[in-house]
Amino acid sequence: MATNTCPEPATRPDLWPTNTCRDANGVLSIGGVALNRETLGDALTGHQPVIVLDEAALRGRAEVWRAAMEEACWSGYGMAGAQVYYAGKAFLCGKLVQTLSELGLGIDTASLGELTLALRAGANPANVGLHGNAKTDAELHLAISNNIGRIIVDNEDEIARIAAISRHYDTRANVMVRVTTGVHAGGHQYIATAHEDQKFGLSLTTGAAERAARTIAHTPELRLVGLHSHIGSQITDLQGFALAAKKLCQLRHRLIEADIAVPELDLGGGYAIAYTGADPTPLRAKDVADVLAKQVRESCAASGDDVPKLSIEPGRSIAGPVMVTCYPVIATKDVTIAEGKTRRYVAVDGGMSDNIRPVLYQASYTATLANRPAKAPTCASRVVGKHCESGDILIADIDLPADVTAGDLLVMPATGAYGRSMASNYNLALRPGVLAVNAGASSWWVRPETLTDLFATDTALGDA
Amino acid sequence: MATNTCPEPATRPDLWPTNTCRDANGVLSIGGVALNRETLGDALTGHQPVIVLDEAALRGRAEVWRAAMEEACWSGYGMAGAQVYYAGKAFLCGKLVQTLSELGLGIDTASLGELTLALRAGANPANVGLHGNAKTDAELHLAISNNIGRIIVDNEDEIARIAAISRHYDTRANVMVRVTTGVHAGGHQYIATAHEDQKFGLSLTTGAAERAARTIAHTPELRLVGLHSHIGSQITDLQGFALAAKKLCQLRHRLIEADIAVPELDLGGGYAIAYTGADPTPLRAKDVADVLAKQVRESCAASGDDVPKLSIEPGRSIAGPVMVTCYPVIATKDVTIAEGKTRRYVAVDGGMSDNIRPVLYQASYTATLANRPAKAPTCASRVVGKHCESGDILIADIDLPADVTAGDLLVMPATGAYGRSMASNYNLALRPGVLAVNAGASSWWVRPETLTDLFATDTALGDA
Repeated sequence: MATNTCPEPATRPDLWPTNTCRDANGVLSIGGVALNRETLGDALTGHQPVIVLDEAALRGRAEVWRAAMEEACWSGYGMAGAQVYYAGKAFLCGKLVQTLSELGLGIDTASLGELTLALRAGANPANVGLHGNAKTDAELHLAISNNIGRIIVDNEDEIARIAAISRHYDTRANVMVRVTTGVHAGGHQYIATAHEDQKFGLSLTTGAAERAARTIAHTPELRLVGLHSHIGSQITDLQGFALAAKKLCQLRHRLIEADIAVPELDLGGGYAIAYTGADPTPLRAKDVADVLAKQVRESCAASGDDVPKLSIEPGRSIAGPVMVTCYPVIATKDVTIAEGKTRRYVAVDGGMSDNIRPVLYQASYTATLANRPAKAPTCASRVVGKHCESGDILIADIDLPADVTAGDLLVMPATGAYGRSMASNYNLALRPGVLAVNAGASSWWVRPETLTDLFATDTALGDA
Repeated sequence: MATNTCPEPATRPDLWPTNTCRDANGVLSIGGVALNRETLGDALTGHQPVIVLDEAALRGRAEVWRAAMEEACWSGYGMAGAQVYYAGKAFLCGKLVQTLSELGLGIDTASLGELTLALRAGANPANVGLHGNAKTDAELHLAISNNIGRIIVDNEDEIARIAAISRHYDTRANVMVRVTTGVHAGGHQYIATAHEDQKFGLSLTTGAAERAARTIAHTPELRLVGLHSHIGSQITDLQGFALAAKKLCQLRHRLIEADIAVPELDLGGGYAIAYTGADPTPLRAKDVADVLAKQVRESCAASGDDVPKLSIEPGRSIAGPVMVTCYPVIATKDVTIAEGKTRRYVAVDGGMSDNIRPVLYQASYTATLANRPAKAPTCASRVVGKHCESGDILIADIDLPADVTAGDLLVMPATGAYGRSMASNYNLALRPGVLAVNAGASSWWVRPETLTDLFATDTALGDA
């Protein structure tokens, strides 16, 4: 097994929030805020880790995606514009919605909670989408009464439900069709066909997607705004996206031939980020945007169609690398794992409750000693959480300085996506806050949970 | 693959809460409460599933474990008594603590949240334990200031920390040593040796456990109350428990020879329950208690030691089978998975946010149509949640009536343990409430989450 050592920010900047560095004292700092107990004192309540968000890095990444798509889809190239929708499932809070909205990004949601949050935080409804394979009436009512920019239809029954609710509000709902193109990608390869056996979307192959688009086009309460495809997660090559785009263009052409306008294609998200030094440098936004725009232009030129507006839905690739988790070390223990061979268990305050990905997806992470320079030589270590479960392992194999001890802070990069958003109160652990840092100042975007929050729904204890 | 059909309560009572039946109209009822929209109307808020807890079944299962241990450890057999500690990590709320405390069970905790809850709910501190491989100062202060019955020491550094805090409160903390016996069990087999490479416990083999016990015995601020072993989860045979008990007795004998009293042995938990009709009938409490008591008696007789008090820590086997999850069906979709072969996707309101076990552990579950009798023939189905993730599958393969449709209720048995306790707000889903039912009446033990709860820590939206 390759040795897992955490690259310093100077060596692998893609792994870290943009404004991360070691200061003159060897302390890791982000956005001018040193990650040690002196600076984070109040934030380290002693009951959970702290998630630190680099606000300028967030703006930077959002801006890079927006600019890349706008440039690639410039009208000078015959394109009808572009829109980037941030996939809220990666991580969502009010301040993040406000920040991304200011930068012109839209917000993708997939539940009553996400949609409510986006709207309450002030996102422009025209730039909000609603996904979901099982949309409830409450979700559809909220979406339609606010006239959001797109409801992505996932099954045929939904069409009539959306139409009925649109009639109720005397409006015309904007809908897209989620198309199962058969292309599936993730990691280093993609599969071109036969990924039909999944809960999302309507099949291109069986004609279900085309049938849905035609039904929508002929339903007066609905406005067909586009076709949608999402091919997977943590994708590192571009071919799958191009193929899915080509397939959407072919379906669009058939609809245009039937006098059905399709103003927009959404090519989803799934762009990989780096989690450890072993991961390749991620795809650049510019390369993604260029490949997608070029494919769509070429397909439309071949079929003689006008070029649609393009949209994409990055989530992880915006939120993932701008946040890190600071874990206080609570205890260490050497365990003999073979004759003369020991493993250092480094137990931190946190674990599978604040980051389920290592256990859930066998996801690899790395971490570094943040609060002081590492002086001792490294030893084979395992970073574990504090949960009452032996599988509660955050990093199975990592070389850490042998003098890491209780009171130190380990910082794990790339925890912004699917970390806090999937956090649980397992073992009644309190979920961490998200501390935004910028130019030496810090503020909570999500404050740390307290015992009062934890017991709020307990009818014997809380205010329930 | 074997067909997954859900056994009716009459066929496999071990799978269901004790007071489950189909009523005369073919509606599934628990504790006299029919699981349909007419009865559950208010509870089905439309934003999450409902977890139903059979209060009498909970009392029954707790009582069976307590009685089995008391009988097996009867003083007439030369035993020094027994105690059952409910493992709070499986599921914990105030009413549950009160119910189990009334029945004489102790409560095992493993975090500030769990310990606080147990104490606030009124558990007798003498019957409360604190586990954890990374106990924080706040946890130790709470445990020691309340003089709880046992702190289970997990690493050598903890000994001095507990002693220092005991001095601070001018008290003497009750501590146990968690021993890594090398025995590991789970499922249908056990491994007798070499399970040292884990975060919990102090090794029997290397002498770390014995060293810790001796240090504790010679630390005036500490009282060594026993030795502890936990060998795994979802265990279906008894041999591993007996072997671990034997090993603890051997260590105890060495300590007694050194004039160190060890009044109690805790043999942990890990007793399997049934999740589907394919699972065997679980071990009976009586058989578990008898085997453990017999082994300890025999070991003590062989070494000439007095027989200690015995304790065990069932969690899943008390809470698991007394709760079910009622999922409203939101949408269905037929997907072609091969030439002429389709799969029915049944999408419910809920999913990996309220039950992560299918995705996390590839755990199998089953479900039945609850709100009406099944009339149509079955078809090959997959029950999926509503999360924006294709892996959000609750039951991969199940035969469900072909007329299951939006508005129906599917009920999944055996969700009481590690369901609500590991629930997240992924996709900003609202976590379900736990509705206790008994003799036709119902009340919330945990009320359903609301959007207000969800946004409480969001500084841009909530009251944060």
